[in-house]
Amino acid sequence: MLYVIGIGPGGLDMMTYQAREAIEQADVIVGYKTYTHLIKALVGDKPVIKTGMCKELERCQAALELAQNGKTVALVSSGDAGIYGMAGLILELVSKQDWYVDVKVIPGMTASIAAGAVLGAPLMHDFCHISLSDLLTPWPVIEKRIQAAADADFVICFYNPRSRGREGHLRRAFELMAPYKAPTTPVGIVKEAGRRKQQHWLTTLEAMDFELVDMRTLVVVGNQSTYVDNGLMVTPRGYQV
Amino acid sequence: MLYVIGIGPGGLDMMTYQAREAIEQADVIVGYKTYTHLIKALVGDKPVIKTGMCKELERCQAALELAQNGKTVALVSSGDAGIYGMAGLILELVSKQDWYVDVKVIPGMTASIAAGAVLGAPLMHDFCHISLSDLLTPWPVIEKRIQAAADADFVICFYNPRSRGREGHLRRAFELMAPYKAPTTPVGIVKEAGRRKQQHWLTTLEAMDFELVDMRTLVVVGNQSTYVDNGLMVTPRGYQV
Ligand SMILES: C[S@@+](CC[C@H](N)C(=O)[O-])C[C@H]1O[C@@H](n2cnc3c(N)ncnc32)[C@H](O)[C@@H]1O
Ligand SMILES: C[S@@+](CC[C@H](N)C(=O)[O-])C[C@H]1O[C@@H](n2cnc3c(N)ncnc32)[C@H](O)[C@@H]1O
Repeated sequence: MLYVIGIGPGGLDMMTYQAREAIEQADVIVGYKTYTHLIKALVGDKPVIKTGMCKELERCQAALELAQNGKTVALVSSGDAGIYGMAGLILELVSKQDWYVDVKVIPGMTASIAAGAVLGAPLMHDFCHISLSDLLTPWPVIEKRIQAAADADFVICFYNPRSRGREGHLRRAFELMAPYKAPTTPVGIVKEAGRRKQQHWLTTLEAMDFELVDMRTLVVVGNQSTYVDNGLMVTPRGYQV
Repeated sequence: MLYVIGIGPGGLDMMTYQAREAIEQADVIVGYKTYTHLIKALVGDKPVIKTGMCKELERCQAALELAQNGKTVALVSSGDAGIYGMAGLILELVSKQDWYVDVKVIPGMTASIAAGAVLGAPLMHDFCHISLSDLLTPWPVIEKRIQAAADADFVICFYNPRSRGREGHLRRAFELMAPYKAPTTPVGIVKEAGRRKQQHWLTTLEAMDFELVDMRTLVVVGNQSTYVDNGLMVTPRGYQV
């Protein structure tokens, strides 16, 4: 049995009961070390197979092999495992290679939701997720999505805002939004949402400082109606208040 | 103190620890009755102020008044309170009227994530949420978003796919996507995700039966690469498998 588990963006607080139970039932835990560290208290004495960043395929194969050999395996992703996580890759491997493994995907809270609650309520209206990593997606596809989302006035959540070696992506994304979104559009930034070192701040499209953003950061850009009041970023839904 | 809590899409399984704790600490619970029913076991003997559908403003005012009078109040939304939920309205009221209330938004898992896990891993690439309710949003804005999202090849999650009295919205949304998305694009449908009566099925853009969709349903439309295999809907991220 292989549980592909989203542990939520932070520590135990934002994990679901279902996720906790699956981890408790597992014989062995597989995951990138930052994530297995976040759930240390739950893992106890169980063997943990940690692998480094960018070893996704390797990690998934290891998890499948253990499960095929009869172990109950918990493969953990941060946030939700089905959002830029391991769930898709596991299901692809199962369908394209010869694995005899039962897989169950256990959903988790994704980073944008935790970030939204820290900032106020910026996701109250239609929004999208765009990953700025072009390791697996051609950059022109990403550019087109940024433009379309800005033009149609979506709130936009940027995941992977700073890939290693591609520090210019976020700045470029902001240039692409500029024809469609006002310079004063609120922007909320949350680093390590839900974790001990959580930090957040507010800025605007024109005043954005790209240097402060790193790989553990989520960037939320408002829509036409988003405003900031009392330190909180709110996208009104349209009620007459 | 007012906790604005997302309880997740279903029962206790998909609720976070943080949400559970806040509910346990509350003196009084406020919420639409379907949701307070889902968390009956947690509520115990506490007073529950239930209000009907479409009484959002009334419900929020009631919660603020109780909190201003010194009660610890848990205002519960299904899914995440900041996604088409009560969090935005509460923060708007606090900023525009004279309430002296501490508000804390407690994030929850939104319906699309739970639906994604039921369907497989359809949200592995950039996606958006679009609400098809035009009670608070002009319909032309919604149309523009549907077209932009389809053209830029987002996976699309439709919330409120069937507003009362506006049964044609979802059909119209499918017509709008048709020039951009292939007729065979996979579509996943989940009714009452995470609840006892959960149901789900797969179809395609061209074979969609709109009659089966109701207000408690989430509709997920794939992107160009989304496929169905072994009963699961998967959007590949781009790994060479
Ligand atoms: C490969 S994606 C994984 C997303 C994850 N599966 C989820 O659902 O949140 C990694 C990106 O997610 C965002 N992220 C994940 N956890 C975060 C957190 N706790 N705080 C802020 N951003 C986070 C960052 O943008 C990061 O670059
Ligand atoms: C007003 S919105 C509330 C969304 C909620 N705050 C969330 O984050 O999931 C109501 C819509 O959410 C979707 N929805 C909420 N809970 C659901 C569930 N358990 N299963 C399927 N769809 C759900 C349906 O599309 C419904 O029409």
